[in-house]
Amino acid sequence: MCRWLAYSGSPVLIEGLLYKPRHSLIDQSRHARMGVDTTNGDGFGVGWYSSDIESPAVFHSIEPAWNDRNLRELAAHVYSPLFLAHIRASTGTAVQQTNCHPFRYGNWLWVHNGLIRDFHLVKRELVLAVDESLFASIEGSTDSEMMFYLALTFGLEDDPPAAVERMVGFVEEVGRRHGVEHPIQMTIGTSDGKSIWAFRHSSERDSRTLFYSTDVRTVRELHPELAILQTVSDESRIIVSEPLGDLAGAWNEVPESTYGVVQDGEDEMRPFRPVYSRNGG
Amino acid sequence: MCRWLAYSGSPVLIEGLLYKPRHSLIDQSRHARMGVDTTNGDGFGVGWYSSDIESPAVFHSIEPAWNDRNLRELAAHVYSPLFLAHIRASTGTAVQQTNCHPFRYGNWLWVHNGLIRDFHLVKRELVLAVDESLFASIEGSTDSEMMFYLALTFGLEDDPPAAVERMVGFVEEVGRRHGVEHPIQMTIGTSDGKSIWAFRHSSERDSRTLFYSTDVRTVRELHPELAILQTVSDESRIIVSEPLGDLAGAWNEVPESTYGVVQDGEDEMRPFRPVYSRNGG
Amino acid sequence: MCRWLAYSGSPVLIEGLLYKPRHSLIDQSRHARMGVDTTNGDGFGVGWYSSDIESPAVFHSIEPAWNDRNLRELAAHVYSPLFLAHIRASTGTAVQQTNCHPFRYGNWLWVHNGLIRDFHLVKRELVLAVDESLFASIEGSTDSEMMFYLALTFGLEDDPPAAVERMVGFVEEVGRRHGVEHPIQMTIGTSDGKSIWAFRHSSERDSRTLFYSTDVRTVRELHPELAILQTVSDESRIIVSEPLGDLAGAWNEVPESTYGVVQDGEDEMRPFRPVYSRNGG
Amino acid sequence: MCRWLAYSGSPVLIEGLLYKPRHSLIDQSRHARMGVDTTNGDGFGVGWYSSDIESPAVFHSIEPAWNDRNLRELAAHVYSPLFLAHIRASTGTAVQQTNCHPFRYGNWLWVHNGLIRDFHLVKRELVLAVDESLFASIEGSTDSEMMFYLALTFGLEDDPPAAVERMVGFVEEVGRRHGVEHPIQMTIGTSDGKSIWAFRHSSERDSRTLFYSTDVRTVRELHPELAILQTVSDESRIIVSEPLGDLAGAWNEVPESTYGVVQDGEDEMRPFRPVYSRNGG
Repeated sequence: MCRWLAYSGSPVLIEGLLYKPRHSLIDQSRHARMGVDTTNGDGFGVGWYSSDIESPAVFHSIEPAWNDRNLRELAAHVYSPLFLAHIRASTGTAVQQTNCHPFRYGNWLWVHNGLIRDFHLVKRELVLAVDESLFASIEGSTDSEMMFYLALTFGLEDDPPAAVERMVGFVEEVGRRHGVEHPIQMTIGTSDGKSIWAFRHSSERDSRTLFYSTDVRTVRELHPELAILQTVSDESRIIVSEPLGDLAGAWNEVPESTYGVVQDGEDEMRPFRPVYSRNGG
Repeated sequence: MCRWLAYSGSPVLIEGLLYKPRHSLIDQSRHARMGVDTTNGDGFGVGWYSSDIESPAVFHSIEPAWNDRNLRELAAHVYSPLFLAHIRASTGTAVQQTNCHPFRYGNWLWVHNGLIRDFHLVKRELVLAVDESLFASIEGSTDSEMMFYLALTFGLEDDPPAAVERMVGFVEEVGRRHGVEHPIQMTIGTSDGKSIWAFRHSSERDSRTLFYSTDVRTVRELHPELAILQTVSDESRIIVSEPLGDLAGAWNEVPESTYGVVQDGEDEMRPFRPVYSRNGG
Repeated sequence: MCRWLAYSGSPVLIEGLLYKPRHSLIDQSRHARMGVDTTNGDGFGVGWYSSDIESPAVFHSIEPAWNDRNLRELAAHVYSPLFLAHIRASTGTAVQQTNCHPFRYGNWLWVHNGLIRDFHLVKRELVLAVDESLFASIEGSTDSEMMFYLALTFGLEDDPPAAVERMVGFVEEVGRRHGVEHPIQMTIGTSDGKSIWAFRHSSERDSRTLFYSTDVRTVRELHPELAILQTVSDESRIIVSEPLGDLAGAWNEVPESTYGVVQDGEDEMRPFRPVYSRNGG
Repeated sequence: MCRWLAYSGSPVLIEGLLYKPRHSLIDQSRHARMGVDTTNGDGFGVGWYSSDIESPAVFHSIEPAWNDRNLRELAAHVYSPLFLAHIRASTGTAVQQTNCHPFRYGNWLWVHNGLIRDFHLVKRELVLAVDESLFASIEGSTDSEMMFYLALTFGLEDDPPAAVERMVGFVEEVGRRHGVEHPIQMTIGTSDGKSIWAFRHSSERDSRTLFYSTDVRTVRELHPELAILQTVSDESRIIVSEPLGDLAGAWNEVPESTYGVVQDGEDEMRPFRPVYSRNGG
């Protein structure tokens, strides 16, 4: 099990969200409250977009996040208008930088919490479905990166929700063909640097938790003590596996099998429905 | 807070004690039950003696013990008649190999659980007390290693209990002079490759837990399922911060302010009394 | 470019070969003399067999070998009758433990110096040829590990020379179909714990260097100063990418496109001929 | 032996100087041309100031610089008007982040190339001379960091040249008292975020190399092909252990026993004269 966080809004120092809040993501690396495992010490990563450079930067480390001095330095000196952070609890694959989230392809970042069950049974079939032009870019060995490359194969860059629905449908079909009852469990965050898409789904309809922040103006009134809220723009938005702090009224749960889009203009939330090949996948 | 384990007896594969038991030391690195912190993910170390090489080997890593593949390999292929293992939860100093236990000097190994309180206040005065001939061998920055070099200065190699009593007395005096109410908290394990000395003490008389194994013959009868017990010699002995497994009847607590010696012939357990300088320190 | 060493004979402390000789493998990690690159600082590994445990141990690290304290400790305390060591200079893939040699499958170890040229062009086709039952065991992303799994697919465990000849033939065929003029460059060492097979071949017939030791009795007379030679058995044998020390008369070059077997009884050396699929591959 | 680089001028992407030039600092980590050792693979560090945050950031790693992906990411996404970078070749002390340059205290950064000879003989006496208020901030075990804390003790924050002259005088006195003929060898770069001071000195008057860049306008005319030169301001200045690229006319050697200041207004270069205690140290 892992934990992740995505932010979009006015540029903030990354530490403002990663370290400063009570029960911050870094605290959760040692003491998560929700989910299967309370320790997320198997590496971490941050991917951030800059105002003036198109391609995002990624910082990956196999040290536990709570110990990493470089992360602390970077978070205290880098401003970003959109970033994703992830702390990892491995479900079996090696702890190495190429298995740390966020994964990156072109301008896209991808974080995942959950797993493809019995991954060793289905991995070969999934690999074969990855587009030939993408194949050589796979660097690690995780189910999470495989989901990313399948989503890219199915058109993530053109229509993210449709691509993820086809990816999930495909993984569920392959898994079931191999006798796996509930092939996939996931929350996913992905971004092209302009919008963030967040997905919550699992084959068993009992998905890992996912929350999004209440309108900043409301939270600001509720929590005048949280400095970062005073400085961010009204349209800023946070998405998290597990709420930061003890901010009553600040968090809304993403419903089961739902996805949301944080974007210019109105944010959206819609039902998530895996697309199976008999449906045209 | 840290956790440690010491073994003395017939040569065993290290993994037999480090990985195989339920609630093994490696399990404790992620989920300790006793003590201040349940995660001990800030590095670890193993120091082992061989039957035919006088100097012990040490293996240190800053990865969490539960992830380290090299530790798993080594533990599955190295036999030892006497070894100490330690998992670290830093109380502030850097996570680096030179801060991992066991510390080694000549044929001596040293592990520590606890801390010197307000170490930054007293560190300089403690450093100055280390014998000049030993000074250049200090490699790390921890309170634990400092205690080792002070004990060496006070004669550890000649009379371990007396040297540790003087070391503790000295640290308590220096601490109190700097206004620290309870300067030291510790369990310590140290060995010269023949005997193991284990100490339990704290200025506040509320020391970290420490246990030693019941006579192997008794435990063997109680727990016929634990394979390793069937293979070790009758005089084998285990000392641990926190009991391994759920072995009812297998563990005895070392009393507060007490030390024990595991040695050829009868083991001993005696009161531990810090020696202050007015007593000749 | 990489450097490797294999030893078979009476049990020796690993450091005797890894550290003690002039121009040892560890020296070569910083200052190799032969080959494309003089620095081999992109990780290393040692795989060793024990007298009484069937499965070999592997120790992998991404630190440069010349810095790794754990390797030094281990090498000074572990005896082995058969081991392979490797220092890596990456040809592009990530520096991570799962990309460090020796690779292991069951009781087999595998080290490689060289490369599959334009690996990104052919990787997908090579992956597809790996036997389904082996596929999930691939952990890293190197061409070297891919060659190992292809050789396993082609029967390495039954007939190593035939399997490697088919692997090379297959890689050359796939490479040429993708327009690669000289698809493969290699020296390879592999062992099942009893024998060592060493291969030297390249598509362009200009292979990386490979040497085997002259009969121990002869070298012992030539070099009475090298302590380890006095202690090893007469049938001990060393195979290296680049000679250790400046031992005149101690090393023989493995000829181009040749393989050798170090085994109980007479060692053998034979021509190496890639087997192409039209020949029944 | 180490290599370092300091930049001051209009904000530039760090990679523009660290990676882009021919024979860049990152190239020098594997293939330096000048100096004692051609490989600087024992860790590295970058310290950078930002336009709007007073305290500098530091990024330290024990991987060889040529391999570190995080450094590459960071360098490609962080702009800085003043930064120092350092690649390390250890002269004996452990390879760990707390031994990586630049060292930081408050707003000050410090890089060093060279050594204190027979450091183990003099370390204790040097430690004792460090101001008590600074003592607890020492984190590593290198001679380089010790020189920094001695310079701080002798007033670095008030008068850098005078403090470094006293530090060197003190180290030379202590060394000679212990029978060391040539106690110190150094080039040093230090900054408070506004100016950079660069020192070149050695007891034997045969110091490690140090260069500063010719006026940007001149170099720009000589080398229209170097993109970064077109974007930096006229007063930008680079100081390096070893010239970047093959820029004829772009580099001037700092003379033996000299220091320079890069600052607002005219830069300065003056003789460096160690101050001994008989002179009031």
